[in-house]
Amino acid sequence: MQHKTEIVCGIDIGGTNTAFGFLDKYGYIYFKDSIPTDTSKTPEEFVQYLLIGILKEYQKREDFLSLKGIGIGAPNGNYYTGKMVDPPNLPWGTVSLVSLVQSYVNVPCLLTNDANATALGEMQYGVAKEMKHFVMITLGTGLGSGLVVNGEVVYGADGHAGELGHMVVVKDGRTCTCGLKGCLETYVSGNGIVCTVKELLEEKSSKVLQNIAPDQLTAEDVYNAAVKGDAVAKKGFEITGEILGKSLATTVTHLQPEAIIIFGGLAKAGVLLFEPIKKYMELNLLDVFRNKVKVIPSGLPDTDAAILGAGALIWKKSEI
Amino acid sequence: MQHKTEIVCGIDIGGTNTAFGFLDKYGYIYFKDSIPTDTSKTPEEFVQYLLIGILKEYQKREDFLSLKGIGIGAPNGNYYTGKMVDPPNLPWGTVSLVSLVQSYVNVPCLLTNDANATALGEMQYGVAKEMKHFVMITLGTGLGSGLVVNGEVVYGADGHAGELGHMVVVKDGRTCTCGLKGCLETYVSGNGIVCTVKELLEEKSSKVLQNIAPDQLTAEDVYNAAVKGDAVAKKGFEITGEILGKSLATTVTHLQPEAIIIFGGLAKAGVLLFEPIKKYMELNLLDVFRNKVKVIPSGLPDTDAAILGAGALIWKKSEI
Repeated sequence: MQHKTEIVCGIDIGGTNTAFGFLDKYGYIYFKDSIPTDTSKTPEEFVQYLLIGILKEYQKREDFLSLKGIGIGAPNGNYYTGKMVDPPNLPWGTVSLVSLVQSYVNVPCLLTNDANATALGEMQYGVAKEMKHFVMITLGTGLGSGLVVNGEVVYGADGHAGELGHMVVVKDGRTCTCGLKGCLETYVSGNGIVCTVKELLEEKSSKVLQNIAPDQLTAEDVYNAAVKGDAVAKKGFEITGEILGKSLATTVTHLQPEAIIIFGGLAKAGVLLFEPIKKYMELNLLDVFRNKVKVIPSGLPDTDAAILGAGALIWKKSEI
Repeated sequence: MQHKTEIVCGIDIGGTNTAFGFLDKYGYIYFKDSIPTDTSKTPEEFVQYLLIGILKEYQKREDFLSLKGIGIGAPNGNYYTGKMVDPPNLPWGTVSLVSLVQSYVNVPCLLTNDANATALGEMQYGVAKEMKHFVMITLGTGLGSGLVVNGEVVYGADGHAGELGHMVVVKDGRTCTCGLKGCLETYVSGNGIVCTVKELLEEKSSKVLQNIAPDQLTAEDVYNAAVKGDAVAKKGFEITGEILGKSLATTVTHLQPEAIIIFGGLAKAGVLLFEPIKKYMELNLLDVFRNKVKVIPSGLPDTDAAILGAGALIWKKSEI
């Protein structure tokens, strides 16, 4: 007799692509696929198309027990309401994702935002398996975050807690897409480091980076230049790490986590980024917090982190 | 037959006095008293003296059921370890308060710091009865804070979470007793507002405040002058509220509480303080947080807040 496996489905809705996969509680992914997030469709049409695809794959499998649930990570996904609230990179306005999904399949369905999903993934499959208190920082184009206290993601009064990318850290600083000035993510993110390096290039020269047209410069270019020892690129990482480190001191002063876990492209810069983070975090901490909080890279594989995180929403919930 | 009441004992250990009282779950205080925190005694002798007094009072009462527990609020009180960790205003070093108390009476005994105890008091007896997410700010000589998430005080990895008084909010700012520079409590506290007003008096004149010798000036003087319409004193409250408001925006960005509750002497200044707090908090918030977070004064009576908070430690725990 064939061994049958308990399974959940993790869905990650992104601005460009939507990925989904079936995974067990140990993080083994049995099947995964990705489709374009087709915004020429209405959200209703898109969810129908997505769910029909998912259910077709599920029905093919004879080694699956019944589906335990569907977890979704999506920009501005609200855990309490099950709605994706007017995400900036999708033209759909507010979408009742959980109800839409449950109109196709009658299983538990939970939604949260991308960074919270990554935090859950880290608890279920990554470096936070034994942790009850940690802070997840996801560095992409912007800066996302998920806060975990007593083993639970902090959602706050109506589901928006943990928007560290929008704490104001520089007085009259860079204008953020949110309308505020000096938000953390205008400095600490892919876009932020590119902006910092462009400012540096106005004063210092860099053989490597000056060959790239300013409007073509990417965070990856900065990383590649820094790895080759380019002083301007390295300075860019140092400034980025300093601002993040000081801001994380404020976060530690609130929550005293065991660790700060950093995920995303910039985290690959390793010591270039982690050293200034640690240094400036420690310099701004009260003595009771000093030399206790680890700053570590994510334990999730880049390519599957989103699916793992979305799936973990269901596995973590079913533990309670 | 006489009705008998379930009772807890709340103890508040302060730098000068130690208060205790017996209270029921509705916050009715049946008996309270206060003794000097006699530091000529060893902590063991002091706790013995205190407990003998408490037990003597308890044994007099025929209307009490057995003691449900003893809750203690103390400076640097650690909930996890039951120890008061080297409080700055007491010369005792680290004291194992919970074990000491339990060597005299075999009932549940819990310890936390003053601000966390006040937060618990607010949940049990004050304005946070229906709240699951709020932030308690206590304004005294310094600034204390207690964070409540999902109905529980946030203690963090080893019990020190919620030290908002020591988040660095002014770059290269005032030197704090903790050794850091620019800590919130160097601006927002009794000492902080006095310092701000002294700085203002170097540039502006005030008929009321200039009659007081600078080293005699107190936060109460500033309050009294502000109530009389003194421009410098009012400006002092505005600056204090502005710094607190901006800092609380950072706190809201982390936790999205339902309310910020403010306790202590300065909170009596009412609109003088609350208006700038609200104004500058809102100006620094992401749109999803705007016009949602209440900023309200404590609902606890000043005189009994410490005993109520300490007692609530036991009542809240016994609910779970």
